[in-house]
Amino acid sequence: MEMIAETPEVPYYAVIFTSVKNEEDHGYSETAAKLVAKAQKQEGFLGLESARNELGITVSYWKDLESIEKWKNDIDHISAIELGKEKFYKNFRVRIAKVEVELGKKD
Amino acid sequence: MEMIAETPEVPYYAVIFTSVKNEEDHGYSETAAKLVAKAQKQEGFLGLESARNELGITVSYWKDLESIEKWKNDIDHISAIELGKEKFYKNFRVRIAKVEVELGKKD
Repeated sequence: MEMIAETPEVPYYAVIFTSVKNEEDHGYSETAAKLVAKAQKQEGFLGLESARNELGITVSYWKDLESIEKWKNDIDHISAIELGKEKFYKNFRVRIAKVEVELGKKD
Repeated sequence: MEMIAETPEVPYYAVIFTSVKNEEDHGYSETAAKLVAKAQKQEGFLGLESARNELGITVSYWKDLESIEKWKNDIDHISAIELGKEKFYKNFRVRIAKVEVELGKKD
């Protein structure tokens, strides 16, 4: 996952998930890996970028709001969100944004 | 900078900067620190979140496209972008997105 996502022409959507983890793992890594693998198979999924120090940032890219809404209601996703709230994260924030401009690129 | 940004009610804008650095530093850390300090003083700046492993993700939040445009044309920023293209980064991508929804939050 340590790659820059090859997203298509704008517009498309980004889900910016920012989090600070609790110190104990509580099975976080396994749940996260499973969830990413499932997200990648969803219709409308365009890519994912992730990095973590004390703060973790995961940006997933989606074709439209409909595909985000569908993934939001996936049963495994819902269960992971609950685990996230209760166990994994000290705090987090999820922002949904419409990518309108690609300003610069080097590859 | 290792904090979740306290952004206001939607809508506002996010600049998602994703990068893979070159192995040599070329003064990157110093330039980045100066640039972040200057960005924070710009009109319309709302917050910044940053994390880096192999992949680096920096999301800065802005009031509107006008404030992003103004920062884009800042002379120190332009010079840092040039350094970024020539020296700091193996590859990068910049996406400008309108944050429309705040889906979840824990703090």
